[in-house]
Amino acid sequence: MIKPRTPPGVMELLPPDQIAFQRMLDTIRRNFERFGFLPVETPVMELSEVLLTKSGGETERQVYFVQSTGALEKAGDGLPEMALRFDLTVPLARYVAEHEHDLAFPFRRYQMQRVYRGERAQRGRFREFYQCDIDVVGKDALSVRFDAEIPAVIHALFSELAIGRFTIQLNNRKLMRGFFEAQGVADPDLQARVLREVDKLDKRGADYVRDTLTGEGFGLAPGAVATILEFVSVRSTSHADAMARLDALGSGNDDLREGVAELREVLELVRALGVPETDYALNFSIARGLDYYTGTVYETTLDDYPQIGSICSGGRYEDLASHYSKSKLPGVGISIGLTRLFWQLREAGLVDAAESTVQVLVTQMDASRLPHCLAVASELRQGGLNVEVVMEPSKLGKQFKYADRAGIRFVAVLGEDEIAKGTVTVKDLRREDQFEVTRDELARTLKVELAQPLVEVRE
Amino acid sequence: MIKPRTPPGVMELLPPDQIAFQRMLDTIRRNFERFGFLPVETPVMELSEVLLTKSGGETERQVYFVQSTGALEKAGDGLPEMALRFDLTVPLARYVAEHEHDLAFPFRRYQMQRVYRGERAQRGRFREFYQCDIDVVGKDALSVRFDAEIPAVIHALFSELAIGRFTIQLNNRKLMRGFFEAQGVADPDLQARVLREVDKLDKRGADYVRDTLTGEGFGLAPGAVATILEFVSVRSTSHADAMARLDALGSGNDDLREGVAELREVLELVRALGVPETDYALNFSIARGLDYYTGTVYETTLDDYPQIGSICSGGRYEDLASHYSKSKLPGVGISIGLTRLFWQLREAGLVDAAESTVQVLVTQMDASRLPHCLAVASELRQGGLNVEVVMEPSKLGKQFKYADRAGIRFVAVLGEDEIAKGTVTVKDLRREDQFEVTRDELARTLKVELAQPLVEVRE
Repeated sequence: MIKPRTPPGVMELLPPDQIAFQRMLDTIRRNFERFGFLPVETPVMELSEVLLTKSGGETERQVYFVQSTGALEKAGDGLPEMALRFDLTVPLARYVAEHEHDLAFPFRRYQMQRVYRGERAQRGRFREFYQCDIDVVGKDALSVRFDAEIPAVIHALFSELAIGRFTIQLNNRKLMRGFFEAQGVADPDLQARVLREVDKLDKRGADYVRDTLTGEGFGLAPGAVATILEFVSVRSTSHADAMARLDALGSGNDDLREGVAELREVLELVRALGVPETDYALNFSIARGLDYYTGTVYETTLDDYPQIGSICSGGRYEDLASHYSKSKLPGVGISIGLTRLFWQLREAGLVDAAESTVQVLVTQMDASRLPHCLAVASELRQGGLNVEVVMEPSKLGKQFKYADRAGIRFVAVLGEDEIAKGTVTVKDLRREDQFEVTRDELARTLKVELAQPLVEVRE
Repeated sequence: MIKPRTPPGVMELLPPDQIAFQRMLDTIRRNFERFGFLPVETPVMELSEVLLTKSGGETERQVYFVQSTGALEKAGDGLPEMALRFDLTVPLARYVAEHEHDLAFPFRRYQMQRVYRGERAQRGRFREFYQCDIDVVGKDALSVRFDAEIPAVIHALFSELAIGRFTIQLNNRKLMRGFFEAQGVADPDLQARVLREVDKLDKRGADYVRDTLTGEGFGLAPGAVATILEFVSVRSTSHADAMARLDALGSGNDDLREGVAELREVLELVRALGVPETDYALNFSIARGLDYYTGTVYETTLDDYPQIGSICSGGRYEDLASHYSKSKLPGVGISIGLTRLFWQLREAGLVDAAESTVQVLVTQMDASRLPHCLAVASELRQGGLNVEVVMEPSKLGKQFKYADRAGIRFVAVLGEDEIAKGTVTVKDLRREDQFEVTRDELARTLKVELAQPLVEVRE
């Protein structure tokens, strides 16, 4: 006998949570499709040679390699032939480069699949997790206007997920670069180091960061440091405030001007797309991957759960697939790490796993009536309802208890009386209500009930 | 520059095919849920020790092992710690045994995920492929009535997939065992060998099989062989015919009687579930995995494409998780190998990849009107439509051509006139029709159009 267990670092759910998770996936997909993104799925394993072009660094150390039994036996030197994807960006780059001549550009794709990283095992860290990504990839060029659609997708999606108030935070890498240059921090590596120190503001406090930046390692002038700390603390409070904050930056250098103009256009179109101004804001501290993003960058935080961190991030990049294609493929995109987000929401008590996918339980008290029950169940299914039939007769109370525990809303009873009359008695466990309808009317009646907004009356 | 390519033996699709594939997945899922099955997902990697309990044989030779970079470096003896699942049955067994105390039995689960097998690479053979499985797992016992739901699910699902006429074929392992015993073939291994020979009927012909079975290796009596060949050729043509075929088997031994009684009950309930009698049939030649299935067995074939073989198979088993649990967990289930099926359907020209997920393309001729276009797009999305906006102005003809190629049905034009009047001109590329509606009415109008059955008028 072997102890049944999963490897560490994976999230496996019981059905009620799996249903809640699946609903989140569905909502995300529906919203990606609303905005014209097309589905793509790629194989979980890629050729190591293709996947690890950038090679080195943290990523490669976290990669999982895949070997067939035959390959294991041969063993050989060098890396195994295949590896599991560690994100959806490298597979996208490979996909776009491989299928370049069969795709229409700008190419909008969404991809919602699991990725694999050999993270150190700890609570809330996953070695297998879902990423839900969208990207728009242009050929040669891609207008900054596309950057404005991204916050609209984020807004639609998190509004529908209904996990609380959130703020989409925007910044622009060109604006940042221009600003830092003007403060005498022109070297990109130095900028990166300064930003890493600035990131410690919350944890270590302003004094610590100020001391570090004026200290030996950096040697910045106190005035420049003060200006930097003021800059990175900017959070706009409305659309007009955001515009005013951009005005206040002045005309500066080329990078700054370009970044300001881009953000301005993006914000105007975000507003045109109907995103309420309470739900987006400038945040000049956001940098994201410094070696990758080149224009607009995004983060999204839950207003009431800032400790969760960004739940949806991304930005604009210059060239998606330089390792695979001579074409210049600029793009903009975001990613949601859904496994971690789901875990965090559940920890915060924000996941409601009450309602089953099963909508009706057809009960049974006597095996001789089973054919009748099955016929009624078929009618309900043809009417678009999800139905479970109790196949082995038991006490009715036990069947009701099962429905209640399983989160099944309607329980249909077909006793001798009902069968004789051609009716069905339905108990609505959500409304704590009971009614009798004719068999003909049953499916339609339940569909109407399900479509009605429910005022929660259950204790 | 690295050549962008996938490993051999995987199926990667362009968006139009991916949309068609996704629709099949959605249809399958919807039907699984209609019948009360609950979603489960398991990690793609399992502990080798847990996955390979049965060990040995074809399966283990096809397993892919997974190693982190660290583990590769350490290299050690023995098998790597983790392996990719090769089916969804072993993970189900592990899942049910691991979570036994948190599940309600009979436990109905569906699972639609990819599995991995190191198959020899050849056309139409995949190393990564989707399986779509349902199982009902009982604790200690599971009534044969559950076996009747399976054909109803198969029927609902393949009817909705609309890939042509199909027949769900049923047999029963007890019936077979009883029959073979009566012919003097009592040893299970011998039964298996005989069935393997019988399987060659189509390819080698009856004479060949007869000669083999009466020949040295088997030494069966010619009369027994004739009876066996007659038996395995049975295909019922209607419900009444199926019942008559079962009658004709007589009372025989215990196994035969039990198998006949089970099939009888299953067929009666399949009929009660509304499956048309033209869509199911007895087929006494179906055996499936001889070491695994113990009662009802199923295969499903497309009437017009018998060469595709069974597109959905499964059966009843005695004990799901004997390696992981002392509990007896009998069950019944089926599996669809969707990747292979999709590939075969596409080869046969049965996959229609015409219609995009995008329903409306909002065109743009002048960037100054973009905010207006975006506002209209938002209204359409709020009305439940999937909308792509042309973000960079270009010639209208080019935008129409794009919509046509991409399979987008509606093209919305917002010219100066329309904007002044508060209207939108819509071209319906499917109906080759054009109309103008007020902006207020736009979403509702398109939803109505989409809901109407479309008589194909396009050339």
